[in-house]
Amino acid sequence: MKATFTALAEHGYADLTIDRISEHFPKSEGLVFYHYDGKDEVLLDLLDYLLERFVQIGMPVPDDGDPETQLRSLFDQVIPQDNEQQARDYEIVLTELRMQAAQDKKFREQIDRSQNIFRDRVKEIVQNGIESGDFRDIDPDMVADFLTALFSGEIFERVTTGATRSIRSEIDSYIDYRLLTDKESDHDVGD
Amino acid sequence: MKATFTALAEHGYADLTIDRISEHFPKSEGLVFYHYDGKDEVLLDLLDYLLERFVQIGMPVPDDGDPETQLRSLFDQVIPQDNEQQARDYEIVLTELRMQAAQDKKFREQIDRSQNIFRDRVKEIVQNGIESGDFRDIDPDMVADFLTALFSGEIFERVTTGATRSIRSEIDSYIDYRLLTDKESDHDVGD
Repeated sequence: MKATFTALAEHGYADLTIDRISEHFPKSEGLVFYHYDGKDEVLLDLLDYLLERFVQIGMPVPDDGDPETQLRSLFDQVIPQDNEQQARDYEIVLTELRMQAAQDKKFREQIDRSQNIFRDRVKEIVQNGIESGDFRDIDPDMVADFLTALFSGEIFERVTTGATRSIRSEIDSYIDYRLLTDKESDHDVGD
Repeated sequence: MKATFTALAEHGYADLTIDRISEHFPKSEGLVFYHYDGKDEVLLDLLDYLLERFVQIGMPVPDDGDPETQLRSLFDQVIPQDNEQQARDYEIVLTELRMQAAQDKKFREQIDRSQNIFRDRVKEIVQNGIESGDFRDIDPDMVADFLTALFSGEIFERVTTGATRSIRSEIDSYIDYRLLTDKESDHDVGD
């Protein structure tokens, strides 16, 4: 997985070959070929591995916080604070693998699954927030779609442009103004 | 450009060859080779062509509207209302071309330029809205980054997952609750 990751980060999907993966592999090339039919099979395994890590490391949110804290922590976890090379390689690799989903059903199924885990987590937090009265009576599906697209777009922008879009503080403002009921009650004080 | 577009939508970047472009081309293959060194050069021209169209067709916003109307119209124009095949092909092709920007500086420069045109347009509208008093005193750069990432993410999600994220109505809510000063003054009435 490490050899495939490094080779994909370096060459991109189109120029990736089993030979190039093998260059980053301590064992003989034959061993790689023995297990896999071609690069797409290796890459599906890599995608599976990375998404499992994403689900395990990126997803858990302390259950003891209120919905507002949970939502903010979720974005703290999935949006990297620093733009170090390792984080950048990880995002390039994941984006290259996601791109295969445009043409390949097997990749699409994997991406669908992991995006839905993120989306469902957001939706669940929003639903809890509405029930607890912390959030306005909004449509949890709309908010989940909105924040999922935002999260995807932030990574895609960073991978494919020279710019870094600072979205973290505006997500906080979105939570403040659009989701929280507090803001409204601030204005109601004294009515 | 049409032949390249069709071939790219059908095969994806990695499996695209000059031969495959030529299959969609009425002239002989030699003519294509005569003009271009390889597929990346053809694709850079295609990207240039598509972005010019995007800038010309997608960008103009009636100058007579107020900032709120201008911002909503901008998103009406750039987010397709229907998911017809032509719009889908266009998004796949543009995303495939964007993906090359992860590895190739020439693609990145083009993508940077067009993303910045969108971002600058958003920022300009937001600045005008703040000056006119329609919008709160927010940071136009933050809002521009936020909405640019959102717009990119919506397309990227649609191209790489089976889901369509409905973000249009939540963008309207974001404008209502986060940007417009109206909401606040509604609460101030009678104070």
